[in-house]
Amino acid sequence: MNYLTYLSVWNKLGKTQQQILEESAVKRKFVKGEILHNGSADCTGLILLISGQLRAFIISDDGREITLYRLFERDICLLSASCIMNSIQFDITISAEKDTEALVIPAEVYKSIMEVSAPLANYTNEIMASRFSDVVWLIDQIMWKSFDRRLADFLISEANIEGANTLKITHEAIGNHLGSPREVVTRMLKYFVSEGLVKLSRGMIEITDEYNLLKIAE
Amino acid sequence: MNYLTYLSVWNKLGKTQQQILEESAVKRKFVKGEILHNGSADCTGLILLISGQLRAFIISDDGREITLYRLFERDICLLSASCIMNSIQFDITISAEKDTEALVIPAEVYKSIMEVSAPLANYTNEIMASRFSDVVWLIDQIMWKSFDRRLADFLISEANIEGANTLKITHEAIGNHLGSPREVVTRMLKYFVSEGLVKLSRGMIEITDEYNLLKIAE
Repeated sequence: MNYLTYLSVWNKLGKTQQQILEESAVKRKFVKGEILHNGSADCTGLILLISGQLRAFIISDDGREITLYRLFERDICLLSASCIMNSIQFDITISAEKDTEALVIPAEVYKSIMEVSAPLANYTNEIMASRFSDVVWLIDQIMWKSFDRRLADFLISEANIEGANTLKITHEAIGNHLGSPREVVTRMLKYFVSEGLVKLSRGMIEITDEYNLLKIAE
Repeated sequence: MNYLTYLSVWNKLGKTQQQILEESAVKRKFVKGEILHNGSADCTGLILLISGQLRAFIISDDGREITLYRLFERDICLLSASCIMNSIQFDITISAEKDTEALVIPAEVYKSIMEVSAPLANYTNEIMASRFSDVVWLIDQIMWKSFDRRLADFLISEANIEGANTLKITHEAIGNHLGSPREVVTRMLKYFVSEGLVKLSRGMIEITDEYNLLKIAE
């Protein structure tokens, strides 16, 4: 299986370009919780997800986190190769949320082809525009959505991702996604319990009234 | 004067491509306060600033605003031509903050060249990466910087842009930049007055203690 065909632009690349990519791409495994890319310290390369799940987030000076976006099967992580573009002036951290298998394309190899291939450069543009859109959506959420809506939305998204109504996640991890202190998450979850929307047990959250949780999210 | 040479990639374009751009680009004037581009309603084209100042912002469902970034002389506004990329999934509004003169390149002309020109596609990538960086910086500010820091930083930036310590700006306009209600701005400005940092008069804010205002901003 040639996972490079996940790049929708694959057939528009020249034979030599395809060969260079095939020879340089490396299949790697990352265990759940592993940091794949650490801000400006690394230029890991482009990561093409074969299976698993990644989280891209930023960290404040005092260690707080907020999730910018997540990546799933067949997604491409561009910002783990941020060194290919001079104008990317921020540090992003990428971690594996599940055991993940991925193809890593070295940044300099990708860059050398992108510089001469209009199809690959335009494809890269589309990937970046898509992540950019995620981040503008996040600003809209942070600025204008109340915390109960954001939390309800997060729980429903998680349930959709996992395909299950019982989520194995700590209040602290939710806080790190939403950029909120753990106590704020706990307080709101307790309110959701009192409204009969969820049930809590050690390290678990069960959605018991999806209909009304969805109504809050919307 | 061929303002298209402001595109740093100009000399890497083919003669025919240059000619097409020259023939299609239109010089336009926008008066202060004018809306140049209104979300998904328009695909205005790429705007190359000759003189003046633009503001790119998003608007909430109930009409609140927050500035994403600003553009100055020689800057290029890509998102006013967001229709050139499918993956841009957000609506941005762009207004003239000062009387502005600009060259407008029709979106479809730019797109047709970008699709075949690796230099132009990579150049476009760099512009987008730069705006993307502005927006990630903004998330960092919103999430983790207190409002006094953000307001002090805004006043100092304004003074730098204007080259003057007296700013002609309403509290409401500041609120629209920072995504905060007018009353919150007024309250913090009054605190700044009590600390001797600024003086207020009708529609004007004078920075009287730049040193200590800067210390708050940092």
